[in-house]
Amino acid sequence: MSGHDLTTPVAQRVVNSFNRQGMMQHLDARLVRADVGEVEIALPYGDKVTQQQGGFHGGAMGALADIAGGYAALTVCPEGMEVTTVEYKINFLSAHQQGELRAVGKVVKSGRRIVVTTAEVFHLDADGKQTLCAVMQQTLVPVAQTY
Amino acid sequence: MSGHDLTTPVAQRVVNSFNRQGMMQHLDARLVRADVGEVEIALPYGDKVTQQQGGFHGGAMGALADIAGGYAALTVCPEGMEVTTVEYKINFLSAHQQGELRAVGKVVKSGRRIVVTTAEVFHLDADGKQTLCAVMQQTLVPVAQTY
Amino acid sequence: MSGHDLTTPVAQRVVNSFNRQGMMQHLDARLVRADVGEVEIALPYGDKVTQQQGGFHGGAMGALADIAGGYAALTVCPEGMEVTTVEYKINFLSAHQQGELRAVGKVVKSGRRIVVTTAEVFHLDADGKQTLCAVMQQTLVPVAQTY
Amino acid sequence: MSGHDLTTPVAQRVVNSFNRQGMMQHLDARLVRADVGEVEIALPYGDKVTQQQGGFHGGAMGALADIAGGYAALTVCPEGMEVTTVEYKINFLSAHQQGELRAVGKVVKSGRRIVVTTAEVFHLDADGKQTLCAVMQQTLVPVAQTY
Repeated sequence: MSGHDLTTPVAQRVVNSFNRQGMMQHLDARLVRADVGEVEIALPYGDKVTQQQGGFHGGAMGALADIAGGYAALTVCPEGMEVTTVEYKINFLSAHQQGELRAVGKVVKSGRRIVVTTAEVFHLDADGKQTLCAVMQQTLVPVAQTY
Repeated sequence: MSGHDLTTPVAQRVVNSFNRQGMMQHLDARLVRADVGEVEIALPYGDKVTQQQGGFHGGAMGALADIAGGYAALTVCPEGMEVTTVEYKINFLSAHQQGELRAVGKVVKSGRRIVVTTAEVFHLDADGKQTLCAVMQQTLVPVAQTY
Repeated sequence: MSGHDLTTPVAQRVVNSFNRQGMMQHLDARLVRADVGEVEIALPYGDKVTQQQGGFHGGAMGALADIAGGYAALTVCPEGMEVTTVEYKINFLSAHQQGELRAVGKVVKSGRRIVVTTAEVFHLDADGKQTLCAVMQQTLVPVAQTY
Repeated sequence: MSGHDLTTPVAQRVVNSFNRQGMMQHLDARLVRADVGEVEIALPYGDKVTQQQGGFHGGAMGALADIAGGYAALTVCPEGMEVTTVEYKINFLSAHQQGELRAVGKVVKSGRRIVVTTAEVFHLDADGKQTLCAVMQQTLVPVAQTY
């Protein structure tokens, strides 16, 4: 559907972890693309992700940005390692209903001990109009993969 | 169940908004207590809130902290107003499975244009052991209530 | 020296505020350029800005990023208004001695009540080599100018 | 002047690093107290630390909070190690002139790879009135001491 190849080794690495995330499965999030240093995740609108005014919940936007940044970090990690989020900070720019969210995570700096990423969250309406609705800055650490 | 009185005017104000949050209903989150300037929310463990290693998802911890801080801010807002999250920053301290999360939000400073809060997220295991697992710092703005 | 025109109305607006900042004067910071939505500030190395290992102090990098973002926000504010920093978050990517720092602030979203910016801080060594050494995300509010 | 004992081993560890910080010496900052997990630093008012309205510069408040949190982290680090700031996030609550600032940093969680701290910045006026003016949340990593 997205037209992006998710069968590459780097994308498969993300897919394998993503499919294990009960929360993302439950929210119907899907991986759109995964390149080295950049990952995009989509989240459709629905009553599982709304706040009190019927817009996308900040918690959903935060979760989406967190994993988009986190999976971007995973794509630059040595084999056998995965990443854990140390912290993130997110600014919400606008509220939206319907359509879907797209979070694009990018690696800013990949160190041996610390990986820093940013993510932008966009809203896509039914007409394909795209609006930046949140920006995130995130810190992660590489850890040994245990599964 | 919690032993806290949720029928007070301040608690009812939070309840009325909380019950409208599709995402929080969906995740089985529940309001534990709501006093002026301090609110506690619980989130039970389950496959709706897990990450790839089976622990609570950072996105779930972030969402919980966000609304605990947000509802603490709501309790100090003038009537007819509600609050919108401008941004938050969250540090994750430890990962946990089973049991439940408790997020306690507190107002640090309530201004006419800006409200600042913090939240602590604790994990409670089956034996009632409590471990601090995330800390958040948040900025909100009061806005006119539209529903 | 910078080759940028600081006599434009938008640059003059920044200059007038910048020259009033005792701390920036004291640290020998200088305005490099000021366009609508984007401002660059330089800070030379010296013992006024070092930490315990002789590198640029994180506090100096933070202060520089703060005002680069803040002045970027000022360039999009209505006349008679200035901006106040509500909060910022900064990640430090690498430590540097000698040369100078350059902070480039950019407006991400300019609203009536909230302005969101980002800033990148670069180190420039004597050979002109540029290294990204910090990234910041910031929230400001427009306020009436009182001087 | 502070009445606190700065000759204890833990305080001396902080003093030895603090005295090497050119920026803090230059701004006339002074160490008030250093206990295990908690450090307080003072910064007097003066034209070295002002912004365009004559109040304490956000950059000065940020630098003070950064090192108060950082030195709190240092007090819980193994011998031979020091700490480097990965990132911090600071909210500014109020602006002040005259008097002095006091930043109190506290360790929230001390891990092998990551230390998390918070800091509160207070303004003290000439009458000893204390006002909370900034709150910070910070991430650090322990690193080998190189001097």
